[in-house]
Amino acid sequence: MLTLDKIYHAAFKLREVIRPTDLIHAPEINPEADVYLKTENLQVTGSFKVRGAYYKISTLTDEEKSHGVIACSAGNHAQGVALAASRSGIKSVICLPDGAPISKVEATKSYGAEICLVEGVYDDAYKKALQLKEECGYTFIHPFDDENVIAGQGTIGLELLNDLDEIDAVVVPIGGGGLISGVAFTLKSLKPDIKVYGVQAAGAPSMANSVKDGKIEKLDSVSTIADGIAVKQPGERTFEYCSRYVDGIVTVSDDEISTAILTLIEKHKLIAEGAGAVPVAAVMFNKVPVKGKKTVCLVSGGNIDVTILSRVIKRGLLKSGRTCQLSIALIDKPGQLRGVSQIIADLGGNVISIHHERASEGEDVNGCYLRIVLETRNYEHIAQIRNALTSAGYCIVQ
Amino acid sequence: MLTLDKIYHAAFKLREVIRPTDLIHAPEINPEADVYLKTENLQVTGSFKVRGAYYKISTLTDEEKSHGVIACSAGNHAQGVALAASRSGIKSVICLPDGAPISKVEATKSYGAEICLVEGVYDDAYKKALQLKEECGYTFIHPFDDENVIAGQGTIGLELLNDLDEIDAVVVPIGGGGLISGVAFTLKSLKPDIKVYGVQAAGAPSMANSVKDGKIEKLDSVSTIADGIAVKQPGERTFEYCSRYVDGIVTVSDDEISTAILTLIEKHKLIAEGAGAVPVAAVMFNKVPVKGKKTVCLVSGGNIDVTILSRVIKRGLLKSGRTCQLSIALIDKPGQLRGVSQIIADLGGNVISIHHERASEGEDVNGCYLRIVLETRNYEHIAQIRNALTSAGYCIVQ
Repeated sequence: MLTLDKIYHAAFKLREVIRPTDLIHAPEINPEADVYLKTENLQVTGSFKVRGAYYKISTLTDEEKSHGVIACSAGNHAQGVALAASRSGIKSVICLPDGAPISKVEATKSYGAEICLVEGVYDDAYKKALQLKEECGYTFIHPFDDENVIAGQGTIGLELLNDLDEIDAVVVPIGGGGLISGVAFTLKSLKPDIKVYGVQAAGAPSMANSVKDGKIEKLDSVSTIADGIAVKQPGERTFEYCSRYVDGIVTVSDDEISTAILTLIEKHKLIAEGAGAVPVAAVMFNKVPVKGKKTVCLVSGGNIDVTILSRVIKRGLLKSGRTCQLSIALIDKPGQLRGVSQIIADLGGNVISIHHERASEGEDVNGCYLRIVLETRNYEHIAQIRNALTSAGYCIVQ
Repeated sequence: MLTLDKIYHAAFKLREVIRPTDLIHAPEINPEADVYLKTENLQVTGSFKVRGAYYKISTLTDEEKSHGVIACSAGNHAQGVALAASRSGIKSVICLPDGAPISKVEATKSYGAEICLVEGVYDDAYKKALQLKEECGYTFIHPFDDENVIAGQGTIGLELLNDLDEIDAVVVPIGGGGLISGVAFTLKSLKPDIKVYGVQAAGAPSMANSVKDGKIEKLDSVSTIADGIAVKQPGERTFEYCSRYVDGIVTVSDDEISTAILTLIEKHKLIAEGAGAVPVAAVMFNKVPVKGKKTVCLVSGGNIDVTILSRVIKRGLLKSGRTCQLSIALIDKPGQLRGVSQIIADLGGNVISIHHERASEGEDVNGCYLRIVLETRNYEHIAQIRNALTSAGYCIVQ
């Protein structure tokens, strides 16, 4: 059972390996709230997961430690377990599906784990991990449904109370529910007035559904850019803790998550992964009732693949009106490009790229298209430019 | 004249507005040194510049304050002056060349400055600023060549001594030289054994050249992705301080800077701008003698345009062997794409994009090209894949 004693004990043990991450004031996230960011993306291994993993390992017997530990994950849990095991001087084996991104495999290896690539998907890797556990006597480190893992994550609650007075609300991502269970238990035990809100991706609302319906439910499939919280089914323990201690669970869309990631980059120079950005998305888009409240967004991790990051940046710029794509149908005669360029320049749009293409077969043989990507200030600015082009007789086809 | 008293006074004044930024252990930057990052990219306004600007403004007379201040900058200094003036309750005017990125103009405006867009380049905006200063009685806030501005930047040196024992070396970006002048003066005054190294972009080595030749020299042109330190000529004061207190000045290339930016993103979840990443580049690529030394890299700022960021990420992935582009000449017959795909998959390469194109006019009418972008582990991995394709009879044209 979770107790405050356990949380304090975890905090004591964790001093050996984690950094107490900074709390950064971020008033721009939502001008109507008073927002702070708990930067667990700046934690060693790039996420909070090392807390639970290290504390769990510290509770193993010498006999158990001598056999080593095993986990199944392609993400933060893998890296957390790998580092926690190395620092504890024990062996770790991480099973991953063979399609896992190279960068995550390399990172996990760099923290000292033995990698076991399993053909198939997550479930196949999970089966393999259980099989190896039986065969080799490894201790399986569950990513969330374990009291000691939850206690490790709960230490973040202690740090919050230590770092900031008069917190009104804390907003926390939910995947399997380990993080929010620990944090909510700690905060509600010590300062029950603090509201704790959970956030899930709209494409993976397993805990939201389960808590709403009062029983654990399993999703058939999940789909979100926030891969760190794409979990089909809550844990038994985490379901209980969330039902009891969490004041509300909301969901955010992938577009909202992209905008939040972009905002963290531009305003706060922080890389958050999708899962880490969901609390910021929830506060930015007023999904949680934090108006006038001193609110902490728990930015849980920053392990986002850089190729995905590039795509998210593009998407975020588009969705916030900071870039726009226009396709303009032109008559194929001289001077048209100049005319369009002039209008855009006069209105302060900044051309990023232009493609000038003849119409495809079967269309007007004289026709051509100008596809322009522009840097713009916001949606209003885009509307100004579109209107000016239309007024000048250009036909915007898209 | 700069005195320790002034630095301490600046630190006292700055408590009202800045955050004492975190010092983050970063052993991966160079395994042979013991590296820490001073995260001034996480400073309010995204760079250290607010320190100098705020302290400078605090030393103005009430009469001067009543007229307001003016500065010329498209970057960090603009945002620093804007916020410093707002927090001091005075007016600020920022002159920028009209080609300045929209994001920087908007950010400066958001901190409360009045924006004056000037047709032309930086020098035109600078002339305009001096003209407005005369006409309206504004105080001109120089970006670096001012004792009080330098004193403000020097407060970082006090924080370093406070946060970390036994520092051996501090590595600092140099543009105009204000930051390193303040930091070096502070460190050498209090703990002369600490080595202070300066880093410039290879495309803008104005201070490096000037100190080497013992006299201030002006570059005809500068070219670097580190726009924050693309300065043609050192200041008179900063030249004196650098000559006296700095133990060495090195330069890094744009490719080295890109790799450093990418490393900070992936390993530390931090966004640095080019100027902020040059100390990390210098330490990664062994430009400074820090083997076995406890070394602080001063990450001075994070205000990088996100469209440039995307390009830098791409460049960094290419230069570190993490992506590769292959063009393969194929005979236009079925099964060729499958064969190539098979070889790449067997060796664990991850295909990001494929373009299959007929050869252009004038070339072999049967020929076509496969242009593939791959995610790879490193250069060795790329060589493996290239060798396997060549051995199988495919002709890699590029």
